[in-house]
Amino acid sequence: MSLRDEALQYHRKNNGKMGVIAKAPIRDGYDLSLAYTPGVAEPCMEIHREKDLSFEYTCRGNMVAVITDGTRVLGLGDIGPEAAIPVMEGKAVLYKTFADVDAIPLSIDTKDADEFIRTVRMLQPNFAGINLEDISSPKCYDIEDALKKEMDIPVFHDDQHGTAIAAVSATIGALRLVKKQLSDVKVVVNGAGAAGTAIVQLLLNAGVGHVIMMNSKGAMYEGMEMSRVNRVQAALLSKTNLKKEKGSIADIAKGSDVLIGVSQPGSFTTDIVQSMNANSIVFSLCNPEPEISYKEAKAAGVKVAGTGRSDSPNQVNNVTVFPGVFRGAIDVRARQINEEMKLAAVYAISELIAEEELREDYVVPDVFDKRVAPAVAAAVAQAAIKTGVARIIVDPEEIRAKTAARIERA
Amino acid sequence: MSLRDEALQYHRKNNGKMGVIAKAPIRDGYDLSLAYTPGVAEPCMEIHREKDLSFEYTCRGNMVAVITDGTRVLGLGDIGPEAAIPVMEGKAVLYKTFADVDAIPLSIDTKDADEFIRTVRMLQPNFAGINLEDISSPKCYDIEDALKKEMDIPVFHDDQHGTAIAAVSATIGALRLVKKQLSDVKVVVNGAGAAGTAIVQLLLNAGVGHVIMMNSKGAMYEGMEMSRVNRVQAALLSKTNLKKEKGSIADIAKGSDVLIGVSQPGSFTTDIVQSMNANSIVFSLCNPEPEISYKEAKAAGVKVAGTGRSDSPNQVNNVTVFPGVFRGAIDVRARQINEEMKLAAVYAISELIAEEELREDYVVPDVFDKRVAPAVAAAVAQAAIKTGVARIIVDPEEIRAKTAARIERA
Repeated sequence: MSLRDEALQYHRKNNGKMGVIAKAPIRDGYDLSLAYTPGVAEPCMEIHREKDLSFEYTCRGNMVAVITDGTRVLGLGDIGPEAAIPVMEGKAVLYKTFADVDAIPLSIDTKDADEFIRTVRMLQPNFAGINLEDISSPKCYDIEDALKKEMDIPVFHDDQHGTAIAAVSATIGALRLVKKQLSDVKVVVNGAGAAGTAIVQLLLNAGVGHVIMMNSKGAMYEGMEMSRVNRVQAALLSKTNLKKEKGSIADIAKGSDVLIGVSQPGSFTTDIVQSMNANSIVFSLCNPEPEISYKEAKAAGVKVAGTGRSDSPNQVNNVTVFPGVFRGAIDVRARQINEEMKLAAVYAISELIAEEELREDYVVPDVFDKRVAPAVAAAVAQAAIKTGVARIIVDPEEIRAKTAARIERA
Repeated sequence: MSLRDEALQYHRKNNGKMGVIAKAPIRDGYDLSLAYTPGVAEPCMEIHREKDLSFEYTCRGNMVAVITDGTRVLGLGDIGPEAAIPVMEGKAVLYKTFADVDAIPLSIDTKDADEFIRTVRMLQPNFAGINLEDISSPKCYDIEDALKKEMDIPVFHDDQHGTAIAAVSATIGALRLVKKQLSDVKVVVNGAGAAGTAIVQLLLNAGVGHVIMMNSKGAMYEGMEMSRVNRVQAALLSKTNLKKEKGSIADIAKGSDVLIGVSQPGSFTTDIVQSMNANSIVFSLCNPEPEISYKEAKAAGVKVAGTGRSDSPNQVNNVTVFPGVFRGAIDVRARQINEEMKLAAVYAISELIAEEELREDYVVPDVFDKRVAPAVAAAVAQAAIKTGVARIIVDPEEIRAKTAARIERA
């Protein structure tokens, strides 16, 4: 059977991938009187007294929404809200599987950013967090910014920040292996879309000394022609490419230490990666065909290579990120996912591999490594508490242990 | 432990009452490649080609949203969206338990009817049906009407139509016992809110000859002072109380055969029910304290009595209605729940009790009677097919059998 037929059958046979479950059975009138009238009036009145008790007495406390408008789904583009559901539903199932976070898919049928923002804001009472997904750029920036401002629960565009945390964490791991410092190396990020700009921002927050952002026309720098530069890219120009290097990827990759691709298949030729410094690090995240395949990169002499694909080493995959990030955030009922929490996730992922375990082909933990979500959740929760955005204090070690137990059960 | 403490603990211990479940496990990279990239692109492209394939390839096909604005929750009134969640969540769990319908609670944080309507409309891609719940009257009429017009999936305000189906079904059962015809009897509905008007409308559709609707001031009739009559009540006046009887419930109940209360506790005194015709039928649905208790009604000589309470016979409860109604509707991907489907549910419920089984204290099936949802689902699906609102044709007997099997598993 072809992959296509298998995938269609997989989705058809159970009518999709997720369903709902009653956490306690309703077997008789007594159960009914607790779960429904008259007993249910009690938590209603408690929450009416204090809204945040909704996190304690209802499914809200463990519930995240995966929300899209269907305007930029995978590599398929603007396929609309109905066609986006399988991806959202898949994400929801990953949340459940990898961190026991209850997640529901929601496609919003509008292309208008303001309408989308208003709609998501009105859904706030039901959720502990919002994962924005597959929304076209640059609309996604306005939407995320507006929602972060207006909402009191985390709003996180995973295509930006999940990818950034995964990519930066892989970079940190590779740098530890080759014993270079982030503050010393020259990093080139090829691609200035949602993922690219988020990677650059997170690298800056992590202390990168020297990073250059590339768009399809070449290196971006402060003072460049601004007509095709959006506001998010513009804000990064003053802190990146300080030497104002100009040119194509072939020019800019010369003498670089780290090359991260969020661009087009085949963008990194053998010549390009060979012009990098010794002990080069290349992460080619274009999916499904990377900028350069793992095999070709290694054959060209790259020291540490990785892609988004599962069939080669060092898979850089958001699945290592968003389940644990939200697990930690919602366990302390965080109001947001801030930069400190993102960085905490970066280091939690990387540090799962001890110095002596690091290898060229092993600088990021495997997607199915069960230590990942607990470690990320604990670190993110701790950062939330430390930066004052947690509604409640929970011992991060307790979160680590509980998350590990949850994953076993889920 | 008091009921209050038990109810709070019940809601606190599992963090609410519902969660999400992955229908198929994701154990390795292979599962991931089917549930997520690259395999997930296949159902996306199919649905992009034909939107209604979303019912087949995603959880949408079994998913209903229980939606409120929190403006009229149980007897607690306008307690707001957060405080409404326990009720919505309870409803969702009942859908799952009684008919294996996946349902999620959604509180919309707005009091503006137009904004509410727009928001729900934009959520259409995710669901096979919408259960509106606990929205204040008369706003609920405008909201339901607008959504029914604009949406291509069933929109059903259970406080109106679920209650109506339950009440009319109980009435039909009682009339079968006392061997009276609906077209011959005088029926009085005490209460002209959401439930009352829906009961009156359904009685008319069922062929009632003579029904009088009462508001808090007394009998309503065509030509009455209109300042406190809303448009839904107004539309019913030309078809009800044709003799234009005037007065209080004490006046109007005289010589009536059926009295249905959706009003205030204690509204039906012993004198009132004793002024009814022989073999009187009284359903007192005010919750938790009925218009007259079962005991008092029987002591006063009422032939068939019932309330909404589970601790006396003939419990008239929407739980007998909405799970099966939506099971049937979504199994044929119905575009709406129309009057024929509602009537089909009425008779399916009543006919579960054969002539020889009918008793004064048994004219409605028990809430936990496992034959109910399968019978209702089959009848509703059949009516949907018959009236041309089904997207797909499924054998109603297959739906009956599958629903029975689903309930065993759920």
